Amino acid sequence: MVMKFEVIKKVEGSKARLGRLFTPHGEVSTPCFMPVGTAATVRAVFPKDLEKDGVQMVLANVYHLILRPGIQIIKEAGGLHKFMGWEGAILTDSGGFQVFSLSSFCKILPEGVRFKSPIDGSSLLLTPESVIDAQMELGADIVMSLDHCPPWPSKEKDLVEATRRTIGWAKMGKERWEKHWGTKMVERSTNPMLFGIVQGGTKKELRQDCFEELLKIGFDGFAIGGLSVGEPQEESLKTIEALSPFMDSSYPKYVMGMGHPWQIIQMVDLGIDLFDCVLPTRLARHGSAYVEEGILHLKNARFKKDGLPIEEKCSCYACRKFSRAYIHHLLKSQEILGIMLLSMHNLSFYNRLMKEMRLSIGNGQWIDMLTRWKNKKITK
Amino acid sequence: MVMKFEVIKKVEGSKARLGRLFTPHGEVSTPCFMPVGTAATVRAVFPKDLEKDGVQMVLANVYHLILRPGIQIIKEAGGLHKFMGWEGAILTDSGGFQVFSLSSFCKILPEGVRFKSPIDGSSLLLTPESVIDAQMELGADIVMSLDHCPPWPSKEKDLVEATRRTIGWAKMGKERWEKHWGTKMVERSTNPMLFGIVQGGTKKELRQDCFEELLKIGFDGFAIGGLSVGEPQEESLKTIEALSPFMDSSYPKYVMGMGHPWQIIQMVDLGIDLFDCVLPTRLARHGSAYVEEGILHLKNARFKKDGLPIEEKCSCYACRKFSRAYIHHLLKSQEILGIMLLSMHNLSFYNRLMKEMRLSIGNGQWIDMLTRWKNKKITK
Ligand SMILES: [Zn+2]
Ligand SMILES: [Zn+2]
Repeated sequence: MVMKFEVIKKVEGSKARLGRLFTPHGEVSTPCFMPVGTAATVRAVFPKDLEKDGVQMVLANVYHLILRPGIQIIKEAGGLHKFMGWEGAILTDSGGFQVFSLSSFCKILPEGVRFKSPIDGSSLLLTPESVIDAQMELGADIVMSLDHCPPWPSKEKDLVEATRRTIGWAKMGKERWEKHWGTKMVERSTNPMLFGIVQGGTKKELRQDCFEELLKIGFDGFAIGGLSVGEPQEESLKTIEALSPFMDSSYPKYVMGMGHPWQIIQMVDLGIDLFDCVLPTRLARHGSAYVEEGILHLKNARFKKDGLPIEEKCSCYACRKFSRAYIHHLLKSQEILGIMLLSMHNLSFYNRLMKEMRLSIGNGQWIDMLTRWKNKKITK
Repeated sequence: MVMKFEVIKKVEGSKARLGRLFTPHGEVSTPCFMPVGTAATVRAVFPKDLEKDGVQMVLANVYHLILRPGIQIIKEAGGLHKFMGWEGAILTDSGGFQVFSLSSFCKILPEGVRFKSPIDGSSLLLTPESVIDAQMELGADIVMSLDHCPPWPSKEKDLVEATRRTIGWAKMGKERWEKHWGTKMVERSTNPMLFGIVQGGTKKELRQDCFEELLKIGFDGFAIGGLSVGEPQEESLKTIEALSPFMDSSYPKYVMGMGHPWQIIQMVDLGIDLFDCVLPTRLARHGSAYVEEGILHLKNARFKKDGLPIEEKCSCYACRKFSRAYIHHLLKSQEILGIMLLSMHNLSFYNRLMKEMRLSIGNGQWIDMLTRWKNKKITK
């Protein structure tokens, strides 16, 4: 298998690294944060503004797209990139996480998972093969294997079972993948990538075993799933820390669905390359803004007359042109523009942070940046 | 008084004309449509995108801004333009219409109107003088007199009374205006303008009397208020038609709050220069798009697989990059981007229409354009 990922620079005394992924929709510099576009839209943000702001890749949720509008409609529209007006890379998740956490009814069968559509009540089946097909039909740049993400806390027995199942599904998905692409070596950057998902809860040995099994099956990259599902934050980071040394460093590593800025910095230090998280856009819809010191809740009365921009050092449109007082007013008036400006700022904040991390890894100042962030007093 | 409006071109066989207004925030070419920014935001649209699309002037509602965030906060923020990040011209209404139609309690007193804030229940007073002061503090480019807009239908007695009151208030407002600016001649385009509002329901003589009284008081321009309050559409147009010949053609004329595209075209033909209407942004929030043939309700199932743009001839971002099927999907998923794209398109549609009208008046093709529109089959 041709490597579609390259590590450009490593840091002494840390696992942080600078890399690049070669996708059919361009090179992606890592560490990279992916805004979440669940229903084929990063909420309240124009794709052109994502692009302008330096977003390289977004995540879309296959589970949601199967339910609405349906994979076939997107395929007929010329694929997900065209449908959603986004020319950068797209990683699609497999639906594994959502089918277990969002469906009112789901049942594990030998061939996959059966569940009920929360939209029209119809019965649907996800299989390790069908999720690969669906992601291929969408035209994803990075395709994820179907996984079984158990809730937290779970009994060891259930964790083991879910992990075994995840490995089995990964193997079945890989076989389907090979039917699409063959086993032959292909040019990097012409074909999409297939990632395996490591499960195992917070059990180090289970995680390690899972990774080793996935490595044998063979993937272009590896994701750590099943975190940020309710466990304490230190547990998530400890799990990544424990697993990280065992994961072959020549592959891209992706931690799924977890990412306050201060968490991402710690995960980059542990060698993680890819991140996604709903927080920047979700907090925006709740009226909150990320700044380097933490989170500002702009609905709070103390911002009523605050003439400062959200963040003085930020050069996004929301910060260049508007005050906290104006955004406070918009939020109080339930005006959509408030959400639009906060979503723009929060994503801009993330993008600036990722650029700053890549820069400091590149010019040997990573440890300084990490230390500076560790010493920050974060207000949430 | 120095004329702040210039008629550049007239059309034979029509009252349509091309003009320009000189405002402190730039020249405004007329006929001009003003998007409505009730609470200091044109809903779901970035000011930068309004500007890019050729919007010259927006309307803001003093009534709403008094209630929230309060005039003082906007004044301290450096005025309404700075507060809302909009560098073009702003016309503010006087609150007359809203105080009567939106307040749960309002009482006419000798000095003005007392009403209850629907936000915190506090008692507030609008006077002919206070609304002038408020608009001056906001930094409006066009300031409107306080008027009394009676509901439709009203008894003749009530119409007469409301019209008398409107004239009295206009006089009191004008006196306050002169305290701000003096009576001296001033350079055009350095100072804002004061407009009087003609009331009188659908009674031709009452309207005419009202205009003549307002003319004696002296204003920079004249608005026709009290239309589109429930009367049949033909009645509104007839009223404008009856009034239009009596209104001195050297002044800018503005019909308030009324404006489907096909109505605006007819009003331009009757010599009207300025328009505002909530429809393009309101219909967008309801999932509807203006096209030359009428209105598309994009939530309708027939758009589920429609790969065409909203309107093929439109060059707005929504039409260049997205399909009806995508927007249908966004609306069904209650995604904000759906409203953002439709608001952008609808305003773009209005702007294109206004440009086309100005162009056809300028190059002698107005009658052709009017005829083409009169022959259209409009689907609502
Ligand atoms: Zn910002
Ligand atoms: Zn358009």
